[in-house]
Amino acid sequence: MNHPEHLENILTDTLVTEPDALLQKVTEAWRQLQIQQPLVQCITNSVAANYVANILLAAGASPAMIDNPFEAEAFAQVAAAVSLNTGTPTSEQMEAMRIAARTAHQTGTPWVIDPVGYSPLLKWRSDLVNEILQYKPAVIRGNASEISTLAGNQVNSKGVDSTLSSNEVYSQAKVLLNHAECIAISGESDYILCRSTEQIIKINGGSHLQPKVTATGCALGALIAAYTAVTSVEIATIAAHVHFAIAGKLAYETAQKTGSFNVAFMDYINGMNAELIQQYADIELIS
Amino acid sequence: MNHPEHLENILTDTLVTEPDALLQKVTEAWRQLQIQQPLVQCITNSVAANYVANILLAAGASPAMIDNPFEAEAFAQVAAAVSLNTGTPTSEQMEAMRIAARTAHQTGTPWVIDPVGYSPLLKWRSDLVNEILQYKPAVIRGNASEISTLAGNQVNSKGVDSTLSSNEVYSQAKVLLNHAECIAISGESDYILCRSTEQIIKINGGSHLQPKVTATGCALGALIAAYTAVTSVEIATIAAHVHFAIAGKLAYETAQKTGSFNVAFMDYINGMNAELIQQYADIELIS
Amino acid sequence: MNHPEHLENILTDTLVTEPDALLQKVTEAWRQLQIQQPLVQCITNSVAANYVANILLAAGASPAMIDNPFEAEAFAQVAAAVSLNTGTPTSEQMEAMRIAARTAHQTGTPWVIDPVGYSPLLKWRSDLVNEILQYKPAVIRGNASEISTLAGNQVNSKGVDSTLSSNEVYSQAKVLLNHAECIAISGESDYILCRSTEQIIKINGGSHLQPKVTATGCALGALIAAYTAVTSVEIATIAAHVHFAIAGKLAYETAQKTGSFNVAFMDYINGMNAELIQQYADIELIS
Repeated sequence: MNHPEHLENILTDTLVTEPDALLQKVTEAWRQLQIQQPLVQCITNSVAANYVANILLAAGASPAMIDNPFEAEAFAQVAAAVSLNTGTPTSEQMEAMRIAARTAHQTGTPWVIDPVGYSPLLKWRSDLVNEILQYKPAVIRGNASEISTLAGNQVNSKGVDSTLSSNEVYSQAKVLLNHAECIAISGESDYILCRSTEQIIKINGGSHLQPKVTATGCALGALIAAYTAVTSVEIATIAAHVHFAIAGKLAYETAQKTGSFNVAFMDYINGMNAELIQQYADIELIS
Repeated sequence: MNHPEHLENILTDTLVTEPDALLQKVTEAWRQLQIQQPLVQCITNSVAANYVANILLAAGASPAMIDNPFEAEAFAQVAAAVSLNTGTPTSEQMEAMRIAARTAHQTGTPWVIDPVGYSPLLKWRSDLVNEILQYKPAVIRGNASEISTLAGNQVNSKGVDSTLSSNEVYSQAKVLLNHAECIAISGESDYILCRSTEQIIKINGGSHLQPKVTATGCALGALIAAYTAVTSVEIATIAAHVHFAIAGKLAYETAQKTGSFNVAFMDYINGMNAELIQQYADIELIS
Repeated sequence: MNHPEHLENILTDTLVTEPDALLQKVTEAWRQLQIQQPLVQCITNSVAANYVANILLAAGASPAMIDNPFEAEAFAQVAAAVSLNTGTPTSEQMEAMRIAARTAHQTGTPWVIDPVGYSPLLKWRSDLVNEILQYKPAVIRGNASEISTLAGNQVNSKGVDSTLSSNEVYSQAKVLLNHAECIAISGESDYILCRSTEQIIKINGGSHLQPKVTATGCALGALIAAYTAVTSVEIATIAAHVHFAIAGKLAYETAQKTGSFNVAFMDYINGMNAELIQQYADIELIS
């Protein structure tokens, strides 16, 4: 992974507001993911570990779940991107997340935080999330309840699933751009806010079955991280969501129950190509 | 989740001995699971975590794997049910199980224990199971070897798989009704004993491939917990076993090898409906 | 599990160099796996746990993921084989691996080490691997980068995936026969070296999609361990690789994307039989 080139991308590759040009950039990001196969360090939860690794491999990236505090620093120094997730933290993983976030910040490696379960109820993990925001994640990604609570609102969350709609939350999320370059809120449609533009990016597609398969959100967070290794943070966030939305939409046309839907979803994540992106990407820019 | 209503259910909704009325109650339990989508706290093993979450989501419940000792109490206070499983315990999970069981007991939240590997050989986990039985699980669920050993018999268990048949064990299991309202023993047929009735409930169906897919038993324990949040403990235990037995039977008609069987099984867990329950539930009452 | 008989096998059942006789031995090993269903203790990573258990069950063995330091000794004393894997170690798992390796050595139980991520970068786990080699694993199994580094070469590994080809490494690997009876190197073709023969055994088959499904290597390590419980270490290592290579080849004929490929792969692991082994095994002996 060529860090200097990557950093240059972040600086020069600003978000384009013409839908066609944007689609080209998303397609090119997908191509670069296949070529570069970036090494992504994932510290994720026990529910998601296998699924996240399989999604990243299927999408073209190279995952490594280095989640112990004794190796986290050395590995974050060589990883092309880092993905952190607070689904089922252990004390050792907590410490590893602290170290990986700090190291990524020091080396200029983009990292993504998915603050699963962020809420007053789950204080231990929420405190950790608050603490590591100082290390400036590239992207904060979560469901509407998590993002709203993180943005300082009182939310009645339901465990780790959302009780809010994504479209209720995206205006609240702007305050989080103080911490990260982009904020991504998943829901029936996904909303992305970036520091570099006033526009809200809305990604349509997907399937209502996605939240019925566990760890799809966790895998999306890791895929965003993978894309940040090969393009700008803004395009990375959009490209990962488009990749997921197309796969979810086409998988649901193939299978309508969660077992076979999940297999078809993995197949479409793996079988993504430039034609599918051109044909099915559904990106709205909201002024 | 409305706890007072739930507690009232436990008190008023006694086991019915007319098969037709019983089937109606099972069907209604399934309907309530879809409507209420109860939040189930699961502390389970690393083999089962993803699978358990997917089974619960597919069945209609809302799983949350809050398995650290720092958040276990707060979460058990809001969960609609708690599912504990001793498959691959860590020190932190052990402490979380202690806390979750105690908290569930204090709040009157139904909880289920699946004492995976309970045996003289695996003393650490077995001691924990012995200890937390004081917190009065609603249901103890296990394979025949685990239940027989827990009931005080000497068994030559084979790792975490059973060496006994379920029908050899159900008379031994009665002593465990001192600890829990129902005892469920899985095997070629499943047997359920409840404190509220002298009859043994035998659930037929399923497939010989189920024990060839790991964590199906663990997922069944979690599904029992989910059902206890929406109906009486007796009906919950029966309904979860019926849900599994029908899905296993129909999945085997679809696929005869474990990979595709597992996909079909998840599809039928997800695709369960009142008609399938009425048509395929096979419940015997043994006097 | 009959240990004395097993040990006798190791002593008397030397590698045969006639391909037909070798194939008979592989077929017989598969049959014995179905009959004996050996109990395999696996201490593996969070990404692989579910998959490894399902592969072992599908193949005919009986997995038990006893990975805590408080039960590891008692369990290793009764297991028919032990499989260790350093993918995502925790402090407790590390201690459990030490104990299990030592115990297996004391009881003469065959054990397999898959040194996932072995490299100067990941020092914590690599130190553990170095330490437990004193307990004489039956088999060391890894990808080309891991095996080359373990053999004392400097390699630029990429996380946990290999940057070397298996055929570049097998001559380097001979030095590792000081530690283990067989060394297995996975790659486009798999290479096996054994102390008891000068010949290199090359296993052809499989699919380029196998490394795109996470934990296939981890599952192969566990399957080798399972086979060591029912035949000689040499035949066990070959049989596990043949089992995987045939399933991978046939699965790819069924499905070309990773989601459905993975389902088909599990189906063929489960559906292996003497005819498929006779028809599709592709074993080369390199002098």
